[in-house]
Amino acid sequence: VNQRRAQLIGTGLIGGSVGLALRRDGWFVTGHDTDITVAARARDRGAVDTVGDDAEAELVVIAAPVGSIPSLVEVARDRHPDAVITDVGSVKGPVVEAVDDPNFVGGHPMAGSEQSGVDGSDASMFDGAVWVLTPTESTTAEAFALVHSVAARTGAEVIALDAAEHDRIVAMVSHVPHLAAATLMRLAASRSDAHSALLRLAAGGFRDMTRIAAGHPGIWPDICSENRAAIVEVLDELIAELRQVRVAVETGDRNGLIAQLESARKARLNLPTTAARPEDLVEVRVVVADHPGQLALVTTRASELGVNIYDIEMAHSAEGPRGVMILVIDASMSHQFAESLASSGYRVSLRPLR
Amino acid sequence: VNQRRAQLIGTGLIGGSVGLALRRDGWFVTGHDTDITVAARARDRGAVDTVGDDAEAELVVIAAPVGSIPSLVEVARDRHPDAVITDVGSVKGPVVEAVDDPNFVGGHPMAGSEQSGVDGSDASMFDGAVWVLTPTESTTAEAFALVHSVAARTGAEVIALDAAEHDRIVAMVSHVPHLAAATLMRLAASRSDAHSALLRLAAGGFRDMTRIAAGHPGIWPDICSENRAAIVEVLDELIAELRQVRVAVETGDRNGLIAQLESARKARLNLPTTAARPEDLVEVRVVVADHPGQLALVTTRASELGVNIYDIEMAHSAEGPRGVMILVIDASMSHQFAESLASSGYRVSLRPLR
Repeated sequence: VNQRRAQLIGTGLIGGSVGLALRRDGWFVTGHDTDITVAARARDRGAVDTVGDDAEAELVVIAAPVGSIPSLVEVARDRHPDAVITDVGSVKGPVVEAVDDPNFVGGHPMAGSEQSGVDGSDASMFDGAVWVLTPTESTTAEAFALVHSVAARTGAEVIALDAAEHDRIVAMVSHVPHLAAATLMRLAASRSDAHSALLRLAAGGFRDMTRIAAGHPGIWPDICSENRAAIVEVLDELIAELRQVRVAVETGDRNGLIAQLESARKARLNLPTTAARPEDLVEVRVVVADHPGQLALVTTRASELGVNIYDIEMAHSAEGPRGVMILVIDASMSHQFAESLASSGYRVSLRPLR
Repeated sequence: VNQRRAQLIGTGLIGGSVGLALRRDGWFVTGHDTDITVAARARDRGAVDTVGDDAEAELVVIAAPVGSIPSLVEVARDRHPDAVITDVGSVKGPVVEAVDDPNFVGGHPMAGSEQSGVDGSDASMFDGAVWVLTPTESTTAEAFALVHSVAARTGAEVIALDAAEHDRIVAMVSHVPHLAAATLMRLAASRSDAHSALLRLAAGGFRDMTRIAAGHPGIWPDICSENRAAIVEVLDELIAELRQVRVAVETGDRNGLIAQLESARKARLNLPTTAARPEDLVEVRVVVADHPGQLALVTTRASELGVNIYDIEMAHSAEGPRGVMILVIDASMSHQFAESLASSGYRVSLRPLR
């Protein structure tokens, strides 16, 4: 059997991770990057077999800034007339509008890392992530099937969406939340000049809300530019909703506030915690003081009982250091696990996930 | 030596926890509650020695809804002419304005729990929390010293603030973030009716931002009513800042966006992670896939090395399931700990905390 061959265009964080995942899966991977030192580093890290251009590649993966993707697809098509081409850009509408090619499939693996660049790349980056594909009416089934299978074999959950819908969704769940977190953080910081105690009072809830603002800003101007319309629309909605909240506070509309907060609470409790099959899973909530010994104890207890933990998070109370550890585990083991923790003095509650 | 005597007015979550902490510290605690079953439950849980009113109490702690505190202080003063009186309300301006009493000290222990009511009370609730006291010009040194010592002995870090300043700060770091998280969650949920995939794409960053929206809404109408002015002011500032962000996005102001996000990033990285002495502490960042086995491994490794973890959090990337475990530990042990993790294949970085 001939080894399957892929071409990477761009070998940074995501491109490098795709390369590592493809090679783990048996592909022969050739890659290049506008920065030749990045391409060389990708080869040293094992993200590509060789640096350069492979005319025999059946798959081309473009991992470059969104604005450059349409022209890179054109160049790639000239060099690889029969290849399936995909990209990993985080905005999809402008790409699929500009590219009219039945063997191109737009993609967006929703994964990232605190580290940037090829040194942060990792074959397991997409494990458990959602990988969106945005086929158009002209996309061939063969092209879609190839990209789908490559994405799924990285461990990602593959979801097909209309490109414009994808862009509206990521504006809502990723882009605007990021901008809002940064805005809240800046506002608090600007006030902390006057009140030096302010940041010492910023406890669990504030920390959770602003955490993503610690990320590197480098990619955001591109994202904001490419997804401008959707981001502006969601920002407008957010501002309008906040104005309504302001009115409810100013007029003392207790019922209105309760209704707003109650519907948010219900929605948050129903937020899927994992991409794994939710019909078999149970959410276990364990009240803990914010002491790491307890964290180790609870997770080790799970290992001892053979309980696989699909997701874990620490929810802090709005004020103060206490929290609730939220674990998602197999329903079949949940009672045994809960009883074991309860017998050690923990307060435990169980909630099936839809 | 005579046992010191305290009176609790209100024996719910916070009142009960104060009672447990006082009794742990050797006090004789009498308590009552408008709900007599709550008071009886507090006695059964050991939060009070006895239910009733103790004319001999030298300290009265009022743990009741903010709106009722001024009149409860008056009643308590009639019954306990020589006692020091304090409260635990989460808004302080309206209280200290309404109460003109040199032996009253306003207080706000910034602690909470997912559980509400006396059944959630816990002697260690204030351990590591910030406990704000809001003395006025007329407050006596003796009264302040007594409340300060009681608060500090619960394990809390005690901070004195002007009452109005306290209210502006909690509006900024607690009340408005809570309202904003709920608003973002409601907005996403309303859109998810049209796009069923939306909530499946809501990954790490969105989950972090909306986590506090899962809390019980019950206390918020009171808080919004009592701290109305400060909340409206911060909401106005947030809306104005979001409008500026909107302008930057719409006009493609790349430099403006980078500057905004960069200043937010700096501020978030400098957010104190713990109330413990930060001069001796180091932040350890460990890149992990979001697998709980790694969490147990890292925290257990710390225990093995005798490394005390002061704070721990999981920072998810803006998109996708990967994360960084952020641990705050003693500087003296940090290199040994980091080397141990690195030798197990983890990517580890260290950053001293100011």
